[in-house]
Amino acid sequence: MLREKVGTLYGVSVGTGDPELITVKGQRLLQEVPLIAFPLGVNQKQGLAETIIAHCITPQQKKLPLYFPYVQDEKQLQQAWKEAAETVWQYLNQGIDVAFACEGDVSFYSTFTYLAQTLRENYPHVTIQTIPGVSSPMAAASVLGLPLTVRSQNLAILPALYNVAELDQVLGWAEVIVLLKVSSVYSQVWQKLNRLNLLAHAFIVERATQPEQRIYQNLHHHPHLTLSYFSVMIIYCGKRETKP
Amino acid sequence: MLREKVGTLYGVSVGTGDPELITVKGQRLLQEVPLIAFPLGVNQKQGLAETIIAHCITPQQKKLPLYFPYVQDEKQLQQAWKEAAETVWQYLNQGIDVAFACEGDVSFYSTFTYLAQTLRENYPHVTIQTIPGVSSPMAAASVLGLPLTVRSQNLAILPALYNVAELDQVLGWAEVIVLLKVSSVYSQVWQKLNRLNLLAHAFIVERATQPEQRIYQNLHHHPHLTLSYFSVMIIYCGKRETKP
Repeated sequence: MLREKVGTLYGVSVGTGDPELITVKGQRLLQEVPLIAFPLGVNQKQGLAETIIAHCITPQQKKLPLYFPYVQDEKQLQQAWKEAAETVWQYLNQGIDVAFACEGDVSFYSTFTYLAQTLRENYPHVTIQTIPGVSSPMAAASVLGLPLTVRSQNLAILPALYNVAELDQVLGWAEVIVLLKVSSVYSQVWQKLNRLNLLAHAFIVERATQPEQRIYQNLHHHPHLTLSYFSVMIIYCGKRETKP
Repeated sequence: MLREKVGTLYGVSVGTGDPELITVKGQRLLQEVPLIAFPLGVNQKQGLAETIIAHCITPQQKKLPLYFPYVQDEKQLQQAWKEAAETVWQYLNQGIDVAFACEGDVSFYSTFTYLAQTLRENYPHVTIQTIPGVSSPMAAASVLGLPLTVRSQNLAILPALYNVAELDQVLGWAEVIVLLKVSSVYSQVWQKLNRLNLLAHAFIVERATQPEQRIYQNLHHHPHLTLSYFSVMIIYCGKRETKP
């Protein structure tokens, strides 16, 4: 008995905002598949991934917005991932390839991971491929015109800071620190950096490579800032080139 | 008096090996400029960046291999950067745009940084733009089919390990650790991971996305490995989801 061919789910990294920052491979796959999935935007607005890929898909391709709530509640999240996985599976199981457009890089704190994990748990013979892409720390460094890291510098990336004291631990071994989603703790981070004389070495990029992109430097003048969710802070804490 | 227009130097990230992993923007710029610079390969062999871009440049474009020695000696390095900067400047100063093809991401431990810094020091009115791209940790995670990071996981990236004891400090803090250039210290790292029962959670990707790509898992069986310079180790040390 011949088994029906199952479609492939492609996790396509679409980068940080500039539509040209998708890879050639990612763009090709988005143009080849009949069905394009992406996270549904919040408050009836188009989501970032959907905006980025708008120019490269055609009216003939079917769009599949998937709902991923912005909550911490595990039960609600699990339920949403399960529903998204079931929706996508309906198509894959008919042999239809699906590309999921994912902001930034698909392996880096990405919603796609939960969709892929849920699919693998519930439908073990699913086929999934991911296409890497441009992530926010690299995009932020590029728009600042600064290297993110050089030589023997250690890099620490914190997706969220729950306690500003955590920074002390990192400062002991990392020469470069990236804080993602810095908006909610910005004022406390500012005070910490002020005490450590690091304000002159810290930069914020809000919505890197998007039309609304904004750069903040000379943070001495900005003890308080109202920042977008898509804000990255890079702190250059110093070189320790003479390692043991 | 009208000042002669100076050309722009584009630092183009070309990704980790698969030629399709360059961004649409990077590929466009490589095709638009008359002059393509890249690091000269070692031992008369074509370098990685030159190999990656071979398909997208034309015989009409001039190629400019630049010499960057693989040494630690500061004086030799400075001299090589100075010469490379002078060579590139000759063209920029005639109004010719130059694209420098850079393996991985241009901001992430990249040779381009030294070229750009030397140019800025010696020719302050130089114009430089960088195009971000796919870096090795993201490419490695993608070929493993694993997320690099999820949720509140902290990420530590170490470009080189001078002392395996350094790992202890990082293990106390990060849930995911990436070791670049792991080849020279692999056996010591293996022993450390063995003592910590982390071998089952460590993966190596050699030459990610290149034709010679190789994945090592179940590292219990591999206390010694002869690895390429382009090898990345990802260690998943554990989730600490219940942060304060």
